[in-house]
Amino acid sequence: MQTVIIGSGNVAYHLAKALVEVNCPPVQIFGRNERELQSISEELKIPYSTKNLVNSDIYLICVSDHAVENVSQLIDKKDSLVAHTSGSLPIDALQGNYRKAVFYPLQTFSKSKQLKYSKIPFFVEAENEEDQKILFGLASEISENVMASTYEKRKYIHLTAVFACNFVNHLFSKAKEISDSQEIPFNYFLPLIDETVQKIHEIEPKKAQTGPAVRNDRRILELHEQLLKDESLEIYKTMNHSIQKMYEL
Amino acid sequence: MQTVIIGSGNVAYHLAKALVEVNCPPVQIFGRNERELQSISEELKIPYSTKNLVNSDIYLICVSDHAVENVSQLIDKKDSLVAHTSGSLPIDALQGNYRKAVFYPLQTFSKSKQLKYSKIPFFVEAENEEDQKILFGLASEISENVMASTYEKRKYIHLTAVFACNFVNHLFSKAKEISDSQEIPFNYFLPLIDETVQKIHEIEPKKAQTGPAVRNDRRILELHEQLLKDESLEIYKTMNHSIQKMYEL
Repeated sequence: MQTVIIGSGNVAYHLAKALVEVNCPPVQIFGRNERELQSISEELKIPYSTKNLVNSDIYLICVSDHAVENVSQLIDKKDSLVAHTSGSLPIDALQGNYRKAVFYPLQTFSKSKQLKYSKIPFFVEAENEEDQKILFGLASEISENVMASTYEKRKYIHLTAVFACNFVNHLFSKAKEISDSQEIPFNYFLPLIDETVQKIHEIEPKKAQTGPAVRNDRRILELHEQLLKDESLEIYKTMNHSIQKMYEL
Repeated sequence: MQTVIIGSGNVAYHLAKALVEVNCPPVQIFGRNERELQSISEELKIPYSTKNLVNSDIYLICVSDHAVENVSQLIDKKDSLVAHTSGSLPIDALQGNYRKAVFYPLQTFSKSKQLKYSKIPFFVEAENEEDQKILFGLASEISENVMASTYEKRKYIHLTAVFACNFVNHLFSKAKEISDSQEIPFNYFLPLIDETVQKIHEIEPKKAQTGPAVRNDRRILELHEQLLKDESLEIYKTMNHSIQKMYEL
């Protein structure tokens, strides 16, 4: 099965690299940003183009959600299977005369951060069983964790990921803002952060909750509120309120 | 140097265990909850008592913040060094006739979760240099990361930890609530969560931010808001607002 990667961002780079690593290198990486394409092309030894899309069995559209529809209209390959990689778009966001599918890797991608691809869950959806099998096969080359998923389910998977990844990372940013303001090195907190995550591999997060809100320690909650302002204070109040609701305090 | 641990909760258990592991077992574990004391005593082979506090060089008070003052008044050992282990109490929360100090381990402790103690940062404070040295010595037996810290700094260290640990764990609880509601196994998200944390060992969290808010993807933000309600919706809006403020979107 030949694949083409469309796009030159984080997802495009990592999917291309994952396929290279399992000896199924994409036959082309295609997009608009020539500088990025060239850099990926050089690193991974894959041909790139900004103009002519080569023929291929599978096209994986790895562009921002809002660009998927436009990009999908440019693909004029009616015997091919075209999949987008978004967690929050239905299969029919693809607008063209070809077989349609979704190929959604549940991971946070940054070009500068190496990844082990074999653990990434892939959620695939296709219009028929045969195409589903093809994408299962492709994803299974990369990962041990491949599942079918409808749009309804994928929406919630993405939403869960926003809480568990995007918001968590923002809390790290806010935490660093606080520690920076007092010239406390943020790396002091890395063992604590590592343990926070280690824990939920063994204990349900609801059972692992610690801190002043779940202890209903009013003195500390008030002390902390005095130390905070603006968005940090809003986050502090919102999170504590939600913790106290969850534990009926 | 002999130590006594006062308390039978998560911090008491883990500090006692850490001292046992480095061959400085506490001479006693003292508290009110006999069942817990007995269980710790049996596991760690340390004598316990609910009645008579033995003589010791150092007493480490490992009880909830609101109980520190009361417990500290019960210690009648004027030649000893007494330290509390709270991140959010000043040294003079201790009320008794003895040398006072603080011995604050920056970690989240659950009895059921094993820990590697050598990486835990310890923040110590004492009334004089000699006592500071004694506690540095004790903490250094356990950990490679021992620092002096005033109350002013410790308050902010604890506040940072609330964002980086307690709130992060609550986001995991909320994420699991969402995935449970759709019968999506929460362990699908563990590789993503692990990577989210791995990333900030290498990249500043502010540079690692991904997701719809930082991309200012209005369509997804609105879609997600429709899927949420109550505290989850509040968290969603508050976090996105804060992300967009941070990146000036």
